Amino acid sequence: MKNIETGSVKESKVLGIARRARSAARQLSTLSDVMRREVLLVIADALVERQAEILAANAQDAEAALSAVEEGKMTRAMFHRLQTSEIGVAEMRARVRDVASLPDPLGRILEATELDDDLTLHKVSCPLGVIGIVFESRPDVIPQVAALALKSGNAVIFKGGSEAAHTNQVLAETWRDALGRFPEIPQDAVSLLHTREDVAQLLCLDQEIDLIIPRGSREFVRYIAENSRIPVLGHGEGVCHVYIDQAADLEKGHAVAFDSKVQYPAACNAMETLLVHESIADVFLPEMIAQFFNADVEVRGCQRTMSLANGNQQVRGSLRLGNGNLIVSATEQDWATEYSDLIVSIKIVSSADEAIEHIQRYGSGHTESIVTEDSDLAERFMETVDAAGVFHNVSTRFADGFRYGLGAELGISASKLHARGPVGLEGLTTYKYKLFGNGHTVAMYSKGERSFKHRKLI
Amino acid sequence: MKNIETGSVKESKVLGIARRARSAARQLSTLSDVMRREVLLVIADALVERQAEILAANAQDAEAALSAVEEGKMTRAMFHRLQTSEIGVAEMRARVRDVASLPDPLGRILEATELDDDLTLHKVSCPLGVIGIVFESRPDVIPQVAALALKSGNAVIFKGGSEAAHTNQVLAETWRDALGRFPEIPQDAVSLLHTREDVAQLLCLDQEIDLIIPRGSREFVRYIAENSRIPVLGHGEGVCHVYIDQAADLEKGHAVAFDSKVQYPAACNAMETLLVHESIADVFLPEMIAQFFNADVEVRGCQRTMSLANGNQQVRGSLRLGNGNLIVSATEQDWATEYSDLIVSIKIVSSADEAIEHIQRYGSGHTESIVTEDSDLAERFMETVDAAGVFHNVSTRFADGFRYGLGAELGISASKLHARGPVGLEGLTTYKYKLFGNGHTVAMYSKGERSFKHRKLI
Repeated sequence: MKNIETGSVKESKVLGIARRARSAARQLSTLSDVMRREVLLVIADALVERQAEILAANAQDAEAALSAVEEGKMTRAMFHRLQTSEIGVAEMRARVRDVASLPDPLGRILEATELDDDLTLHKVSCPLGVIGIVFESRPDVIPQVAALALKSGNAVIFKGGSEAAHTNQVLAETWRDALGRFPEIPQDAVSLLHTREDVAQLLCLDQEIDLIIPRGSREFVRYIAENSRIPVLGHGEGVCHVYIDQAADLEKGHAVAFDSKVQYPAACNAMETLLVHESIADVFLPEMIAQFFNADVEVRGCQRTMSLANGNQQVRGSLRLGNGNLIVSATEQDWATEYSDLIVSIKIVSSADEAIEHIQRYGSGHTESIVTEDSDLAERFMETVDAAGVFHNVSTRFADGFRYGLGAELGISASKLHARGPVGLEGLTTYKYKLFGNGHTVAMYSKGERSFKHRKLI
Repeated sequence: MKNIETGSVKESKVLGIARRARSAARQLSTLSDVMRREVLLVIADALVERQAEILAANAQDAEAALSAVEEGKMTRAMFHRLQTSEIGVAEMRARVRDVASLPDPLGRILEATELDDDLTLHKVSCPLGVIGIVFESRPDVIPQVAALALKSGNAVIFKGGSEAAHTNQVLAETWRDALGRFPEIPQDAVSLLHTREDVAQLLCLDQEIDLIIPRGSREFVRYIAENSRIPVLGHGEGVCHVYIDQAADLEKGHAVAFDSKVQYPAACNAMETLLVHESIADVFLPEMIAQFFNADVEVRGCQRTMSLANGNQQVRGSLRLGNGNLIVSATEQDWATEYSDLIVSIKIVSSADEAIEHIQRYGSGHTESIVTEDSDLAERFMETVDAAGVFHNVSTRFADGFRYGLGAELGISASKLHARGPVGLEGLTTYKYKLFGNGHTVAMYSKGERSFKHRKLI
């Protein structure tokens, strides 16, 4: 039987919030796209109307954060992420307006089948229900995710980092107050939790919450996933590879590998290990390593890379530039590490199969790229490698919701189920089957009085 | 960094099997549909070729099971499910051939976008990888699920009930031997585990296994879900409702409610509670209850149903037939119970909204049907009610993969993520993004040298 009440969280404040969110979600699921868009445009303006209040709260958070930085309790990067400004608020408004104008993700008929005369089945996209978002610092998460949730008919419960508590509070209030202008929209479409204890309770509410999205460090995402039975949509690690094949166009190889490593090394879609076919290693690698050195990339090589580099004029030349660049020996640990930094490991392989095996063993299933002019091999690589993104002659850095044209990015999913890779608005939807009949009974078919047509309409 | 080895399961036999399955899955993912179909047809015939062996093993299991039944350690129903015959083997063959001829679920281009000149993104369906199936009794699960797995390019690891151990062993061997006739197909596409300890280990292998499908009782499914971090595709409970609206065609109402309850009450898509609008209750219910009594259905009513029934000639007439039929008072517990039996609870409601609220509170999100001629109300009901199936003027019993025309049914998913409701072959697939370029780098776009086109092709 259905578990109506979960003992441990009975009566709790968080359970109350979650139930009101669930009830709000039901109302949201019936709103037209015209209505959802109108509400979002009003909220976007409300953010600017209440800019002074938002910035005052942010200044209060920033002041406390600055002390924390000075006491060494907070990193400077975290402090910067926390701060917003007039430009920041204008961007929040622009983002909410962008989401408002996205195509409606709801009510799309994904499949339609005529089962029999007057008996038609539609598979229709619909909201998930209630989304929980647990995030650190960045206050712009609230307007961005609240907009995506409203656009897709979902209620959302936020828990932000305590360092941005005042800013988050004003942003959530601004949102709820603006919702309050529409009698048909429940304010509980957006709620804000405040404490760690609240989060612990939230993670237990698998009857009330449909999806948890953790935003933050890898350890944070893992903590959430390991402490909840609610499905989690979260970033995994990105140990991405570029494989330069013997049939590679070397110029493309240099461009793709350089971009994959250097363009933004902190991203999860940056390359960590470069795999190079032995037959072109001696012509490809010296120039490649020189480019890496020029960009201050630390290079860690397999034994064969080390010997090649040591015997090579150009690489030794780069070494002599004396920027502190040195190739160091890669260890077993290197192949499994996401540096998220200007560090690359290089391995020379004897075949494409060895490259694929290396990727299967050490890759994280995020994004893997092959550079080759051999399109049969490229096809085999893309079929065999089990990753969310398999690329041919392209930088791994393209693995991103905006670059993919999804219109918005909710995150990059490390899971193979539901949503894989960069996730747009669709990640906040599920589907339901609508069956339209005229008094049909299964007995009619089991007795052979009628039989199914199963004619695909869509 | 990636967890290469999980301490506790290091070196275990099950880990070895899972890794070989993972490696087999990679090979399977590259097979053409023509090849997968050919292999399935050969295996289908192999089942009949080895019929004597299969039936001998089954007789051995049946003999032991019969003793267990006599000792009261096994139900007679379980004993019957365990037994197979020549007809059973012929059916296994037919099922495998059916699966062979299904449309290819792999390599379907779900979306395609031209990001820029020479830069094209395809979202393509592909296998999940390795599926674990833990099931009780029924030996036909092996050929059926192994066929679905092979058709969708997945490797599969089975653990059947010990009561069918000999039969399962021969079936798995038959399958693997037949695979052995094809040098390009790894035999590890199918493996069989033997002990409970094996299952406990399997459930820990979230790096190796992509999906667990438990088949058995509700408690069994719950046990699996609670003891694994691997995603589970499993039946939940089915507390399904039919709501007879004030604007219902009463004849359709009687037909739909009767079929939903009586046609096969043990199924999860059978109705448990009938909700009736107060304004038609006195004309609708007497005939309905009489029909239920004639079909030996036990009726449990809310207070209003009780008073109505006691004051009604027709119902009292049925009571006087003396088949032991009696309307008993429904308790709070009844509304939340899946009887899976010839028992129905009836509640009279004051409005469609009260019906919807009742469903939201007690329904399990499986299948909910409204009977009404008011199509606006039907639309609102279908939008608001959060269930995998929302039906209009149709028996809840239609919620089924074969009736939906999915070609095969893997199970009915209680989850909203990945697969919801009846799941066909598609439930064993995920997708990957294939990006085809020509040396493109993200730097070109971030520097403004190029800009995205994002032209939808599919």
